[in-house]
Amino acid sequence: MRMWGGRFIGSPDPAFMAFTSSLPFDRRLYEYDIRCSMAWVNGLKKAKLLTEQEESSILAALSSVKREMDEGVFKFIETDEDIHTAIERRVRELIGDLGGKMRTGRSRNDQIATDMRLFVMDECRKIMLKILDLLEALVNLSRSNLDIIIPGHTHLQQAQPVRLSHFLLAFAQMLKRDFSRFEEARKRADVLPLGSGAFAGTSIPVDREYIACLLGFSTVSDNSADAVSDRDFVLDALFAVSVAMVHLSRLAEQIILWCSDEFGLLELDDGWSTGSSLMPQKKNPDGMELVRGKAGRTIGDMDSVLICLKALPLAYNRDLQEDKEPLFDAFDTLRGSLEVMTGTVATMRFDQMRAAELLNAPFITATDLAEFLVYKGLEFPKAHEIAGEVVSFCITEGKSLLEVSLDELKTFSPLFDEAVRECLTPEAAVERKRVKGAGNRDECLRQIEMLEKFIKEERERLC
Amino acid sequence: MRMWGGRFIGSPDPAFMAFTSSLPFDRRLYEYDIRCSMAWVNGLKKAKLLTEQEESSILAALSSVKREMDEGVFKFIETDEDIHTAIERRVRELIGDLGGKMRTGRSRNDQIATDMRLFVMDECRKIMLKILDLLEALVNLSRSNLDIIIPGHTHLQQAQPVRLSHFLLAFAQMLKRDFSRFEEARKRADVLPLGSGAFAGTSIPVDREYIACLLGFSTVSDNSADAVSDRDFVLDALFAVSVAMVHLSRLAEQIILWCSDEFGLLELDDGWSTGSSLMPQKKNPDGMELVRGKAGRTIGDMDSVLICLKALPLAYNRDLQEDKEPLFDAFDTLRGSLEVMTGTVATMRFDQMRAAELLNAPFITATDLAEFLVYKGLEFPKAHEIAGEVVSFCITEGKSLLEVSLDELKTFSPLFDEAVRECLTPEAAVERKRVKGAGNRDECLRQIEMLEKFIKEERERLC
Amino acid sequence: MRMWGGRFIGSPDPAFMAFTSSLPFDRRLYEYDIRCSMAWVNGLKKAKLLTEQEESSILAALSSVKREMDEGVFKFIETDEDIHTAIERRVRELIGDLGGKMRTGRSRNDQIATDMRLFVMDECRKIMLKILDLLEALVNLSRSNLDIIIPGHTHLQQAQPVRLSHFLLAFAQMLKRDFSRFEEARKRADVLPLGSGAFAGTSIPVDREYIACLLGFSTVSDNSADAVSDRDFVLDALFAVSVAMVHLSRLAEQIILWCSDEFGLLELDDGWSTGSSLMPQKKNPDGMELVRGKAGRTIGDMDSVLICLKALPLAYNRDLQEDKEPLFDAFDTLRGSLEVMTGTVATMRFDQMRAAELLNAPFITATDLAEFLVYKGLEFPKAHEIAGEVVSFCITEGKSLLEVSLDELKTFSPLFDEAVRECLTPEAAVERKRVKGAGNRDECLRQIEMLEKFIKEERERLC
Amino acid sequence: MRMWGGRFIGSPDPAFMAFTSSLPFDRRLYEYDIRCSMAWVNGLKKAKLLTEQEESSILAALSSVKREMDEGVFKFIETDEDIHTAIERRVRELIGDLGGKMRTGRSRNDQIATDMRLFVMDECRKIMLKILDLLEALVNLSRSNLDIIIPGHTHLQQAQPVRLSHFLLAFAQMLKRDFSRFEEARKRADVLPLGSGAFAGTSIPVDREYIACLLGFSTVSDNSADAVSDRDFVLDALFAVSVAMVHLSRLAEQIILWCSDEFGLLELDDGWSTGSSLMPQKKNPDGMELVRGKAGRTIGDMDSVLICLKALPLAYNRDLQEDKEPLFDAFDTLRGSLEVMTGTVATMRFDQMRAAELLNAPFITATDLAEFLVYKGLEFPKAHEIAGEVVSFCITEGKSLLEVSLDELKTFSPLFDEAVRECLTPEAAVERKRVKGAGNRDECLRQIEMLEKFIKEERERLC
Repeated sequence: MRMWGGRFIGSPDPAFMAFTSSLPFDRRLYEYDIRCSMAWVNGLKKAKLLTEQEESSILAALSSVKREMDEGVFKFIETDEDIHTAIERRVRELIGDLGGKMRTGRSRNDQIATDMRLFVMDECRKIMLKILDLLEALVNLSRSNLDIIIPGHTHLQQAQPVRLSHFLLAFAQMLKRDFSRFEEARKRADVLPLGSGAFAGTSIPVDREYIACLLGFSTVSDNSADAVSDRDFVLDALFAVSVAMVHLSRLAEQIILWCSDEFGLLELDDGWSTGSSLMPQKKNPDGMELVRGKAGRTIGDMDSVLICLKALPLAYNRDLQEDKEPLFDAFDTLRGSLEVMTGTVATMRFDQMRAAELLNAPFITATDLAEFLVYKGLEFPKAHEIAGEVVSFCITEGKSLLEVSLDELKTFSPLFDEAVRECLTPEAAVERKRVKGAGNRDECLRQIEMLEKFIKEERERLC
Repeated sequence: MRMWGGRFIGSPDPAFMAFTSSLPFDRRLYEYDIRCSMAWVNGLKKAKLLTEQEESSILAALSSVKREMDEGVFKFIETDEDIHTAIERRVRELIGDLGGKMRTGRSRNDQIATDMRLFVMDECRKIMLKILDLLEALVNLSRSNLDIIIPGHTHLQQAQPVRLSHFLLAFAQMLKRDFSRFEEARKRADVLPLGSGAFAGTSIPVDREYIACLLGFSTVSDNSADAVSDRDFVLDALFAVSVAMVHLSRLAEQIILWCSDEFGLLELDDGWSTGSSLMPQKKNPDGMELVRGKAGRTIGDMDSVLICLKALPLAYNRDLQEDKEPLFDAFDTLRGSLEVMTGTVATMRFDQMRAAELLNAPFITATDLAEFLVYKGLEFPKAHEIAGEVVSFCITEGKSLLEVSLDELKTFSPLFDEAVRECLTPEAAVERKRVKGAGNRDECLRQIEMLEKFIKEERERLC
Repeated sequence: MRMWGGRFIGSPDPAFMAFTSSLPFDRRLYEYDIRCSMAWVNGLKKAKLLTEQEESSILAALSSVKREMDEGVFKFIETDEDIHTAIERRVRELIGDLGGKMRTGRSRNDQIATDMRLFVMDECRKIMLKILDLLEALVNLSRSNLDIIIPGHTHLQQAQPVRLSHFLLAFAQMLKRDFSRFEEARKRADVLPLGSGAFAGTSIPVDREYIACLLGFSTVSDNSADAVSDRDFVLDALFAVSVAMVHLSRLAEQIILWCSDEFGLLELDDGWSTGSSLMPQKKNPDGMELVRGKAGRTIGDMDSVLICLKALPLAYNRDLQEDKEPLFDAFDTLRGSLEVMTGTVATMRFDQMRAAELLNAPFITATDLAEFLVYKGLEFPKAHEIAGEVVSFCITEGKSLLEVSLDELKTFSPLFDEAVRECLTPEAAVERKRVKGAGNRDECLRQIEMLEKFIKEERERLC
Repeated sequence: MRMWGGRFIGSPDPAFMAFTSSLPFDRRLYEYDIRCSMAWVNGLKKAKLLTEQEESSILAALSSVKREMDEGVFKFIETDEDIHTAIERRVRELIGDLGGKMRTGRSRNDQIATDMRLFVMDECRKIMLKILDLLEALVNLSRSNLDIIIPGHTHLQQAQPVRLSHFLLAFAQMLKRDFSRFEEARKRADVLPLGSGAFAGTSIPVDREYIACLLGFSTVSDNSADAVSDRDFVLDALFAVSVAMVHLSRLAEQIILWCSDEFGLLELDDGWSTGSSLMPQKKNPDGMELVRGKAGRTIGDMDSVLICLKALPLAYNRDLQEDKEPLFDAFDTLRGSLEVMTGTVATMRFDQMRAAELLNAPFITATDLAEFLVYKGLEFPKAHEIAGEVVSFCITEGKSLLEVSLDELKTFSPLFDEAVRECLTPEAAVERKRVKGAGNRDECLRQIEMLEKFIKEERERLC
């Protein structure tokens, strides 16, 4: 069935129909499209465009169609050019011309905008739950490895000792922001376009607030021309996905580094790693590499929709059909990546012995050496310089900071005294940082508890 | 001055220094960097790392530096590798080694993160004010052209008559969403990183909440490793800019179309258009074309930072320096585009005669013909088909819908009667759409008033 | 079947396998993978790692697998994690452990790189043929509409008269460059990686040149570590696609503009346009809008692979698996777009009457007025200024240039004489431009003939 | 000076002029613009539009302008809206109205297209020379470290032993492809647009081939409408830059990894690394991190121009002005990155002791163990499985492959014999790979010599 054609003489070329059809991907929206049609039928009844009898006939037919689709027995036919057409065609097969009444006052333009918004709202919620799962895995790991200290890096150079949990919790902070970004994307989608017609609104006196309420929207759109051509909510979702994937790519990189032979801090579980078809000894973090690689994919998805929207005049243009595949792909990619990351994080094991070995790094507490002098009243730049010279000396002598004698230290500054030794162990260096957000044990516990509370509360709210 | 070097023997290659120096662009942040240093000095004093005397010396020196920079008399020297170094170097020139104390417990990592957040918060506010200006121009134009009806397009084909203001107000809706996106970006930036050190926090007992308060931040960061490597707030701003530019590109395209000779609906003011060096008769919408073209630029800016962040492990990496130029460029591009758009919209003139001429389109109310039959009880698909056949008939006969006689109409359906004529004028077609968000006169007025209220309230809030 | 596992105790988590499996998309490469395996088996025989008997057994089994796949009867099973595994598994089912010998000295890393190169070479050729089809449609249209002159635009403002064919041939130039870009992409792919093993090469003494020859490669890779991790040829193809799609988006935009009611220059064939589910009179250029929108999609595809490759260390990393879906999508998108564009261009009809009507534009030959004065010896800037003043005068008087009297013209410059009239008709304006590349009739014919020759020669070369 | 205005009453708004002016960036093209004007003046003379006297006057004036600009004494004034205007304005100041004659038959549209092509051809050549410099540094390093063997990685897991030079030469292969991509980009730019006017060609009978020859172009454009709106050559250059930057980002990542404390393979020279303002012991690879980060920047540059071009109708649109800044930025970024990379590579030192230590990895030759069995006649999958089991056994026993006794090996397969030991040393593993492209000593030398020849020949060709 085509929804148009009265004014056409020739029929569409098959290559043209294949190219323009959206059914291969928009069928995924069937559930939302049927909900949307049901609410519209309720609205038409309220507007007295349908009798109660007609309303229940159509609703029953829509329920049948949904059942057929749920069960995978629905037969799509060649002339179904999109999911709306397929559903209306089937409704009319089931109950005859009456089925056509559900199209009254509606256009596919406002219909698809509504379907997509319902979809985005739903997917955002699902993604938020998956984020909570990963947060939980990170928090659990932080708790169970609370006493491991490792060399923290900047510029991939060992910099200062850091509590492992502190680093794990940094990733949790990123995910928490992602969570709020999906909350915002969901809110932006939460506006009903239905009733906007092709773009000019409709002369049918439907009560749009009533329909919004039936579909779970908080509000209705304010301008019908904007309503059918607005895809901001798609962009917001794609951006939220892209940033989340960038965060996951950072965590993936961290894990890949940690489980390299050279770092050796981490071993992945057999269930979340793979081997090589050639090299028998290999155990590869393929899941993490794919997560890292897929960050590019979702940025590409977002770009494609942004570019598509550039310079489109009002109102609806068919270009807008190109919003779907990137959005579906982005959500699927993020969901899969979150699952694999959660599985990986939940099962990976740190090697405390190796952590201790790495902490033996000779100069990892050079900053603390400098700060010691600051507490003695020296200006920091001067203290920094002296500590740098001590490091140079150590390199020449082949010693670590802990191996330098007090006498030797005193040749660099008379301010050094016995107490300096206590500052130079990694544990002391970590614990002496007491400000909020630092990585001492208490602060890490505070973060863990705060996150546990957050996970619990948000999970309850969303379920 | 370099802030490091104790452990180095060789000195940096000049080509290397030139490549890595951020001074050519981060000098733009001087005001924020000085504010940030002042607050830090207050914090050091509170933490008893500085005496009251020392505190006021340093603050006075920072004030002098700010004055020098404000007045453009500050002398940068070759070894100033970034704005932080330049300022500290000058402070030390002014007050000697004491100046070095302001670096206590701080790293350039937490410093630059703080500067950038202050900058983003400030710029978001400025952009929001510019958005309000453009909104006002659009609303004024909508009010003053409230009675012009034009053919509305979908697929760039004439579709249904629409009130011009209704279309203008659609763009206002986009801008309103942009406004809220900058509000969110500003909130995401509103977290103090200072006190995070290089990434591990600091052992200096500064009161971070106190410093946050001095700088106008609502809260402090929860994890120091995240705090120094988080650039989400940059991404949020870049995304808000990109979407806003896509919206402006759509408005630009609409204006370009409207002021083409073929549409002829609009004339730009001489002050906001250009001529040709070759063709003497030309009057070109160059401003609009540049706005359209610059949408690509800001998407490129956002992409570059997203790509830069992909797969970075903790904590700080120098790649992060690449966040600045794209961000500066994006804000500047959007600000300029908003100004040009506001100037253009505020001065352009619609041609009501041409609007009327275009409205003479023969089939622009074909949908209303179909809806007439629906009100007579016909199912919409059937009504649509009949209207399509009437159009076909008209094309063959060379008539418009308004020129078909009732008798002729009755050959297509007996349901037609005299009343059909009233439906077929553009004015009636527009006014009969009474749902919320449609383009009838009352609805447009409602939108206008709502926006006027919004503009007034937000301007007061931001100023 | 998994190709690894000896060192693993636990088995892979099902969610992990689903996430990492490439079979859902790399099965598309089966034909190339089998060709590649056959050539490898020939190579192993030549290297005496296989007997003649073994060789023919394996080749026969590979042929069977190909037949099963061609006919769609091949059964994939859950443990087939990629196309290589699936094929090897089936070969071993057919001929037992012997089948495993074909994996000797090979890694999936060099195998997939080879498959992908064969695929790219093949697809480039197919796309080049499609480009020739579209070129032909454009050239035919240029020939059959050779005498139509229309207003040419710059800045979407009427600028100078132009032969319609001249504009159509401009798009042909773009496509010709695309053709050469695919030629280059094909060349870059034309290097055999097989024999590079996982990255270190292989100790099996295969003759790589011999294998290259069997598979139709011109040369073999020079460095095995580069060979398995190089995806430049994918990028080259994606870039060629992106630029071609940008060109098609420009042509699409031109057609959308031309077939708008306001321009009215063009009517699409019923077979290549669609109607509206709501508005019975609509005839929409949906195909063109989708082509325009899909330009974003292929840029997104290219971006995703570029981003994926950023900062990958040597040698193979699993991220590289993310090259496939974007590449497949890009080729499919371009092929479909070329087909729809060809169908549209081949059937669309220009309205010569409307062209003449639009040419009535009052100032379209103002440049010719200025040039007239230049031939009389005036400096161009002065001539330009005078012509501009004449235009101003005409606007005030409501006249076109052709309606201004000679006396009136003389008030602007004494240099005007009777001959000026002949310059001011659109036909004369077009024909007077004699330089190479201009739009006079002869030049257009020259371009047409050159393109016809090009199409003929290249088609022969490729078929 | 404005080049238009005759038909305008109002004057341009200052904000509008500031927004649309291209002078802040296109002044960089002055040299090309002057060369282009000189050639045009020669052409006008040949076409008899200028006398010999006039010709030499204008040429002399253009020479003066060039000198003023070279010396930085040229005074731009507020009404110079682009570089063309500035130059023409100054020429007219110098020689009066005669100067205006050089604009005859020209438009800024064909002028800027010509300038940009000259610029791209020039920059490509310069970049190619810089690529040769880096190639040379890599080749030298490969030669001087020819005997170092390190563990090669796939998936960042130690995989097989590899000659360090082999990895370095892999990067050389990437750069060689980049070189050829710039060669292609240069060829695509090598077409003269001048003479295309605004888009319709010109009625001035200039000899375009003559002008092309004067400017060093090989050919002239075939279609004037295409010639002014074609920016393919900009895209080609931007793509070549983006891919090159992706390659450099990969090399940067490799260096960052190698010089991490955990890998410890590499030390950067003091001249090409930096310290920390906080941590006195740090030596950071900031240059490499910036190169890595800047890969995003150039992809963003390319995206911005691709997006800008999307859906632009013929012929010239002002959007095209947005091609310049991204192109300039991309070339500058790549040039700087190549220089820093060359400086870094030329001065960095490998630690042969650490390489040997890392090669002690217990299972790095497990593949060779499997291949041993293959030579004994076993199918590879079976051999792979056995080798995997040996690895498992070693892990349990805490042994490396070289520490397993022959008796123990025989429990896994009776095919093992004394000879197996010789296969298991890293040196043997590397040298046994004899195929073209593998990393044995001879093959590396072959690659080195081939590259040395390439560098020498290309340098001569380009200089």
